[in-house]
Amino acid sequence: MGRVTGFCKTGGMTSLFAPPAPGRTPDPSLAHRRALVTATLTDGDGAPLADRDVTVRQRSQAFGFGCIGFELVDHIIGESQDRGYDAALADQWLAVFNRATLPFYLGMFEPERGRPRTDRLLAAARWFAEQGVKVKGHPLVWHTVCAPWLLDLEVEEIERALRGRIRREVEAFSGLIDTWDAINEVVIMPVFTAEDNGVTRLARQRGRIEMMRLAFEEARAADPGATLLLNDFDMSTAYECLIEGALEAGIRIDALGLQSHMHQEAWGEEKTLEVLDRFSRYGIPLHFTETTILSGDLMPGHIRDLNDWQVDHWPTTEEGEHRQAEDLERHYRTLYSHPSVESITYWGLPDRGMWLGAPGGLLRPDGSPKPAYHRLRQLVTEEWRAPETTVRTDDDGRLCLDAFLGEHELTVGGVSAVLDVDVPGEVTADVVVG
Amino acid sequence: MGRVTGFCKTGGMTSLFAPPAPGRTPDPSLAHRRALVTATLTDGDGAPLADRDVTVRQRSQAFGFGCIGFELVDHIIGESQDRGYDAALADQWLAVFNRATLPFYLGMFEPERGRPRTDRLLAAARWFAEQGVKVKGHPLVWHTVCAPWLLDLEVEEIERALRGRIRREVEAFSGLIDTWDAINEVVIMPVFTAEDNGVTRLARQRGRIEMMRLAFEEARAADPGATLLLNDFDMSTAYECLIEGALEAGIRIDALGLQSHMHQEAWGEEKTLEVLDRFSRYGIPLHFTETTILSGDLMPGHIRDLNDWQVDHWPTTEEGEHRQAEDLERHYRTLYSHPSVESITYWGLPDRGMWLGAPGGLLRPDGSPKPAYHRLRQLVTEEWRAPETTVRTDDDGRLCLDAFLGEHELTVGGVSAVLDVDVPGEVTADVVVG
Repeated sequence: MGRVTGFCKTGGMTSLFAPPAPGRTPDPSLAHRRALVTATLTDGDGAPLADRDVTVRQRSQAFGFGCIGFELVDHIIGESQDRGYDAALADQWLAVFNRATLPFYLGMFEPERGRPRTDRLLAAARWFAEQGVKVKGHPLVWHTVCAPWLLDLEVEEIERALRGRIRREVEAFSGLIDTWDAINEVVIMPVFTAEDNGVTRLARQRGRIEMMRLAFEEARAADPGATLLLNDFDMSTAYECLIEGALEAGIRIDALGLQSHMHQEAWGEEKTLEVLDRFSRYGIPLHFTETTILSGDLMPGHIRDLNDWQVDHWPTTEEGEHRQAEDLERHYRTLYSHPSVESITYWGLPDRGMWLGAPGGLLRPDGSPKPAYHRLRQLVTEEWRAPETTVRTDDDGRLCLDAFLGEHELTVGGVSAVLDVDVPGEVTADVVVG
Repeated sequence: MGRVTGFCKTGGMTSLFAPPAPGRTPDPSLAHRRALVTATLTDGDGAPLADRDVTVRQRSQAFGFGCIGFELVDHIIGESQDRGYDAALADQWLAVFNRATLPFYLGMFEPERGRPRTDRLLAAARWFAEQGVKVKGHPLVWHTVCAPWLLDLEVEEIERALRGRIRREVEAFSGLIDTWDAINEVVIMPVFTAEDNGVTRLARQRGRIEMMRLAFEEARAADPGATLLLNDFDMSTAYECLIEGALEAGIRIDALGLQSHMHQEAWGEEKTLEVLDRFSRYGIPLHFTETTILSGDLMPGHIRDLNDWQVDHWPTTEEGEHRQAEDLERHYRTLYSHPSVESITYWGLPDRGMWLGAPGGLLRPDGSPKPAYHRLRQLVTEEWRAPETTVRTDDDGRLCLDAFLGEHELTVGGVSAVLDVDVPGEVTADVVVG
């Protein structure tokens, strides 16, 4: 996906705002996800591998099919409370997803100042990486699940503490985590009233743009190669105005995080396309960072802060599961059809431990898959991924491949090479096997 | 009121964002609107005017009690269609208000390119100025009531046309109009879909911040002394984000315009105070630029763009008039009690010609005053204005005055002088009479 690289000098300032790029519209043919590759295969001596059978296996997908990995941390570090359930959960997780989001909420990560719980997340990140899953950290700065000890500090010290934690986490996880929600929910940050917290105090004093600058600058300095996101649930013009202010301030946003928790109703194509149209204008890749779709009763529409909805029992239902599968498929298809979208992260595989106790998982409390799980797995692993196939090279050692973007393993006579198909359209490649 | 004067250098840029000032909270004692003046009166030779009777008459109010003057333009230029009604309307208007907003909608001001209707508004502005009323122009840039000929232009030419009209109007009215809505409703400007128009096309290409910069820069260059407003109806966090982006971009906003059209429900104290709290944080004076309070049925809450509500007949009702008077008094009292608010402009005195045909005027269609008219006049001309009084100076020529901010005429033995009380609190003044 294109990054914003043009600088627009105005009034002595550096704005990263770029005029809308043409062509950022949905394409159901998925041309932006595919490539027609003409590959010429040679052996280690440069001789064409003519007239040979080649086994082609797609081993990774460029598109990010993500899920939170919160529930697997205890299992990974050997502290599972329910080993059978957790082992099955891990298998079900890995059968679908290639991106994991891990929790860095300051209030949980460092409940006591100076005693960060780094080790367990290091272990979890390593485990995911070993399974070929890329890991993202969420979030470096946020006003919720905030460390209570920040409230004892003056604002200058709050700023120092936040800068310190950003640097510390990004450095400690460098090489394992290369994607971070640098800052979360800035739109509401300085006027958040549900709970007194140090981040809101600082944001009220400094303003939204300084808060973003602080988070991005510090994370960028700690890992210049990281992909840094601005993430929000507010899909209104407020988020647009915030983004334009950040770009004006010269803050380089690598991807825009858009949440899509659908506890009150599924977005449907119309809203989803409208959101895509508005937020793709900036020429910055879009990550759908937090998606929840319920398989039970919906939350009443008058609830404004989803956290205000507290129920004792919120079951998954047969009718709800059918609806969830339909809603999920529509959501994923719509997002996947838009060239600006780089990833979709589902906000929790199992109903157990779901945020708000909502039946938003793809697995029931007993661990059995809901229809939505099967639907998503079918899309991800069958429809949007090439099946293993055998093709024969021609007299010049060439073969033609209709591929989804991602890494492909080519095997000839027991020897393999990897071809990374990372550009859509008609492309040529030279592959040395052996 | 304090202007933002501190510059905050960050990363080589000039942000006008300032930390929230303390003390910007409502004060029902109205200490911020009043002064206790100890004035020493001398004659032309410098001798104290000891032991003399002084008549004190407040001749102007510092606070802006405004109204649109759209309906009076035809009357002023001698093209009234109903002379008796219009003459009475003018009297009723001048009995309450000291600020007039005049219409500069491009589609009405210059419906045919190159033929601006400057003369009629010049005549109107002059007439108001002669009555001691300050005049404001609304708006220099907006996407609604937009000139259709802009649609024939390329975006670069749209920009040139907008810059040209800003310069032309601000220069032509310099000395008569010193306050302008530089740009209107920027939050929605680039995503406005109700009507294709040239301003939205430009805004989508340039982004919100460049649109604001264009309007403020051009108007400032044309009249460096003008008071320039950013004006919006969107009271959500979107407007906050927009303002913070503008300040980051170094755009000097002299006053924030907040609309309060209450066609769907009256705000009430809670919402009004919450809005005041959020928007007074920037240390920029607040102008309530567009207030409408109905005396008839309310518009259903599901209507999102008020322009979508079309009814044949929307009458004022007795019950509605009672409610309107109550709502109006609460709104004005709440705003007047907040030190950040500098003016309130009512959006139309008579029901005749009201936007959307709504019964939001303070006069019925037959011209008779509704209770809200009497209520507002009582507040403005009696409760918040000192009555004419006679006081006696002491042996040193001193007198003490408990005044509302504004100009006061002091008359001793048929000779007068003007004392401008423009600072709240305990102040001293020397006044030469004669």
